[in-house]
Amino acid sequence: MIPGAPAKADVGRLLLHCADRPGLVAAVSAFLARAGANIVSLDQHSTQYSGGKFMQRTIFHLPELSTVRAALERDFAEQVASQFDMDFAFTEAAQPKRVAIMASTADHCLLDLLWRNRRGELDMSVVMVISNHPHLADQVRPFGIPFVHVPATKDLRAQAEQHQLEMLRGNIDLVVLARYMQILSPHFLAEVGCPLINIHHSFLPSFVGAAPYRQAKDRGVKLVGATAHYVTETLDEGPIIEQDVVRVDHRHDVGDLTRLGADVERAVLSRAVLWHCQDRIIRHGNQTIVF
Amino acid sequence: MIPGAPAKADVGRLLLHCADRPGLVAAVSAFLARAGANIVSLDQHSTQYSGGKFMQRTIFHLPELSTVRAALERDFAEQVASQFDMDFAFTEAAQPKRVAIMASTADHCLLDLLWRNRRGELDMSVVMVISNHPHLADQVRPFGIPFVHVPATKDLRAQAEQHQLEMLRGNIDLVVLARYMQILSPHFLAEVGCPLINIHHSFLPSFVGAAPYRQAKDRGVKLVGATAHYVTETLDEGPIIEQDVVRVDHRHDVGDLTRLGADVERAVLSRAVLWHCQDRIIRHGNQTIVF
Amino acid sequence: MIPGAPAKADVGRLLLHCADRPGLVAAVSAFLARAGANIVSLDQHSTQYSGGKFMQRTIFHLPELSTVRAALERDFAEQVASQFDMDFAFTEAAQPKRVAIMASTADHCLLDLLWRNRRGELDMSVVMVISNHPHLADQVRPFGIPFVHVPATKDLRAQAEQHQLEMLRGNIDLVVLARYMQILSPHFLAEVGCPLINIHHSFLPSFVGAAPYRQAKDRGVKLVGATAHYVTETLDEGPIIEQDVVRVDHRHDVGDLTRLGADVERAVLSRAVLWHCQDRIIRHGNQTIVF
Amino acid sequence: MIPGAPAKADVGRLLLHCADRPGLVAAVSAFLARAGANIVSLDQHSTQYSGGKFMQRTIFHLPELSTVRAALERDFAEQVASQFDMDFAFTEAAQPKRVAIMASTADHCLLDLLWRNRRGELDMSVVMVISNHPHLADQVRPFGIPFVHVPATKDLRAQAEQHQLEMLRGNIDLVVLARYMQILSPHFLAEVGCPLINIHHSFLPSFVGAAPYRQAKDRGVKLVGATAHYVTETLDEGPIIEQDVVRVDHRHDVGDLTRLGADVERAVLSRAVLWHCQDRIIRHGNQTIVF
Repeated sequence: MIPGAPAKADVGRLLLHCADRPGLVAAVSAFLARAGANIVSLDQHSTQYSGGKFMQRTIFHLPELSTVRAALERDFAEQVASQFDMDFAFTEAAQPKRVAIMASTADHCLLDLLWRNRRGELDMSVVMVISNHPHLADQVRPFGIPFVHVPATKDLRAQAEQHQLEMLRGNIDLVVLARYMQILSPHFLAEVGCPLINIHHSFLPSFVGAAPYRQAKDRGVKLVGATAHYVTETLDEGPIIEQDVVRVDHRHDVGDLTRLGADVERAVLSRAVLWHCQDRIIRHGNQTIVF
Repeated sequence: MIPGAPAKADVGRLLLHCADRPGLVAAVSAFLARAGANIVSLDQHSTQYSGGKFMQRTIFHLPELSTVRAALERDFAEQVASQFDMDFAFTEAAQPKRVAIMASTADHCLLDLLWRNRRGELDMSVVMVISNHPHLADQVRPFGIPFVHVPATKDLRAQAEQHQLEMLRGNIDLVVLARYMQILSPHFLAEVGCPLINIHHSFLPSFVGAAPYRQAKDRGVKLVGATAHYVTETLDEGPIIEQDVVRVDHRHDVGDLTRLGADVERAVLSRAVLWHCQDRIIRHGNQTIVF
Repeated sequence: MIPGAPAKADVGRLLLHCADRPGLVAAVSAFLARAGANIVSLDQHSTQYSGGKFMQRTIFHLPELSTVRAALERDFAEQVASQFDMDFAFTEAAQPKRVAIMASTADHCLLDLLWRNRRGELDMSVVMVISNHPHLADQVRPFGIPFVHVPATKDLRAQAEQHQLEMLRGNIDLVVLARYMQILSPHFLAEVGCPLINIHHSFLPSFVGAAPYRQAKDRGVKLVGATAHYVTETLDEGPIIEQDVVRVDHRHDVGDLTRLGADVERAVLSRAVLWHCQDRIIRHGNQTIVF
Repeated sequence: MIPGAPAKADVGRLLLHCADRPGLVAAVSAFLARAGANIVSLDQHSTQYSGGKFMQRTIFHLPELSTVRAALERDFAEQVASQFDMDFAFTEAAQPKRVAIMASTADHCLLDLLWRNRRGELDMSVVMVISNHPHLADQVRPFGIPFVHVPATKDLRAQAEQHQLEMLRGNIDLVVLARYMQILSPHFLAEVGCPLINIHHSFLPSFVGAAPYRQAKDRGVKLVGATAHYVTETLDEGPIIEQDVVRVDHRHDVGDLTRLGADVERAVLSRAVLWHCQDRIIRHGNQTIVF
């Protein structure tokens, strides 16, 4: 984001949270200074003036980061995190997240993610696309990305999830549900071993469940929207990452809402994926802090 | 709205709806042409390609409109409306709607309506302001508008409504609930004899009922909004006239949402009132067409 | 747009403008009624209350439209247009516009148009893509659309335009410049025989000419935008069809503005192309009326 | 903004900038920790990865701040600022900025500022309103704020500015030009001794100078906007603080643009004033960083 950028290999991110108390910023920044790291950007949030939760995201520049990272993590754990009972994660900007995208038949969210990633806009590496339909194979493979068709009708669901888990487990850092029109079981969510981001085609909490544009038309709303959220066991109830809306009027039928909403869906989902891949998001209960 | 405007006294509006069938536009426009009226603006909407509902708003210029209006209405009823079983209303741009505003303690929606009206932005004449609290009297009376304090605690509700009805019935064309924090009884709605517009401080259908900004904060939404709607017997369920939203984030507490949302509320309510006063709105089931 | 739609083959559009005078709506609608056409949608605009320019767009349903269209045009010319000195055009919704897209190396506007058109969102048939670079051939050809590389360096410009004109003249209804980074000569504009729509990557009239995102960064604006306009001989001065903006801040460098702006560019261009292909636009001096 | 807020008297802000180098965040946060201050919020920006300008805004909680502030400033100057050649300012959240508002005849920006301030939304104390017209006296004085009429026709300008300077110099921290339709001389700007914020009724750099809504209508733009900026000697060229826009179309005449734009003007100006009064803004060349 900032001109004069050094080799990406030397840019690190530190995301952390703990109970708030005086001296946290000083302790972390002093550690980084001692380690030879230059803070490029720092965002901090406390949920209360005192006694709340402290969250911080720091971008720093440290020569030979990949070489020293293991020692850095160990030292930080010993010298800072243990003292403040901190949850923390160091990541390297040069290591993109490994992402699997699951889709059904709608192409707009999927293509937009693949295309943005090819342009270098998203800090991710798409490991595979999984679909319960074969339709989009010809769209995906020209991007050089494996497309795997896993039928997932009601009878096959358990078997399909088993197959999906075999491919995903251990291989990825994030699953993106890009208008994947199947409900994933609690078993799947527990086993996949990484967060999932879903796009819901309404402005949650309005219009949960099926056919939200039809529901929106029936209610006569003047704006329709889309919501990207982390997936939890309760449908459409997970922590919201991003939302946006577009204006509609009486001349628009359900097909128009679907078309206009599709633009919002792809924009909202791509922002949520970008922010996740840039380690900008901290989950706090059923909410998100996006730095 | 259009340069070269004639005396407002000669500008009329015709709002109509009926079952759709061929020849409606021709019949109406031929009638107006025969009457010597020049069509300045015409908006038309059919809910289906055929067999639906036909709605039309026409602005026309007709010299001496106020003199000939009664005859115009009678002739239109005989020559056009009866033939097509049309609901219609002629209004004169020079006759502002007579409006009563009901408020409680929050001043933002009320003052914004009064400011805008003083600047000539809204085609209305504010006949009175009724409040269940005395606080805003000093804000309202300098505008030259009567402020009436009608206490409306639970015990007094029936009596309060009776008092309100005596003041309102027959004297007004519209009631605007500008953050009036009391529920009006079905009896009141039936007796007041004119439409009511309410502002709800959420993006409906999200967060109906009490404390919507608190609900929004708890759900972690990334946009908060406001909704202006016609009042029906079911709380927050009436036909939506206008909605808008504003972006919020984790740094905003409920007080911030309330402050940011207040700007959306007053903007949305003032647009809804303007459109109603300009005869732009047709109700269609639980939806609105806004021309 | 409206449920219960008939065969698209029977849906026609009539776009017209002339000097304003009483009776125009009546004359046109009576003609359509006599012809057996049912008006589905009618938008009308007068630039002044009287003495201005009258513009109207009508959508109608007429069985066997394609068979009777020639007679309809002839009759309208004789019975209505000649009387009022009207410019008019009948078009059939079933006949998509024939469009050529010109691009250089940036893919976002081009691909978005092709994606949307494949989904059936735009009423156009893309006849060919012409580029002064070969880079995008592999992106375009899988859509089944011819890609023609016409080098257009300074020395070759006249020759390139000659080649382009040979391909375009008589074969197309619209040229879309989807970030085509060459200036077209007045000769080309005069000879190509159809309108051209360009996307400029700024909120005109701010930042005409080269490197608008750099200019925007240098000026420190808080929003960047894009503008779709008809092409005239004066660079970036043609009638504006559509504009939109996106919020930016100090953390965004020129690369970020370019990335964020690209989303606005493709959205704005696709709306402008859609509206043109749906015969929604009337040019009025250096302005557009978009119905 | 954050729940559980302590007495405002104990909340301080530290705004600083200097040449970037490693260790700045650590040095500042260690100083604050030693001083017993708890960092509540910290925003930091570097214009480049290295070798750029470093800017930081810190909100902290320090018991008895007003008592110890002088010592805090002296210690910070000695222990931190001198070492890094830092520009810095400590302010107390409990000490609102002293503001003078200058207006002419339009009331929308002025009233909105006074009304928001009465609600406690803006951290300012309005010391006086100065106008070159007497019209708004009755609007202003009910807020308990002095209104001073200083005629400023061309012949009187020098004399008027002298009078204004006598009232303002030393008494205020900020001048807000709320649609003040007079140009202030370089002498005035040099002598007034504090920053000035102006609202320009266009999306700068479009439509500088007079009658921007007329210019916007003539150019046929699809959005109109407003810009709040610091005043410099060059008209409409100062650092932009905030901008926004609203959608317009062919049905809107210059009067409509003026009405719709007025809403944007008051919103943009009030945000700019709020941010200034909360010490969120750092000027960097002709740009602003708004934390």
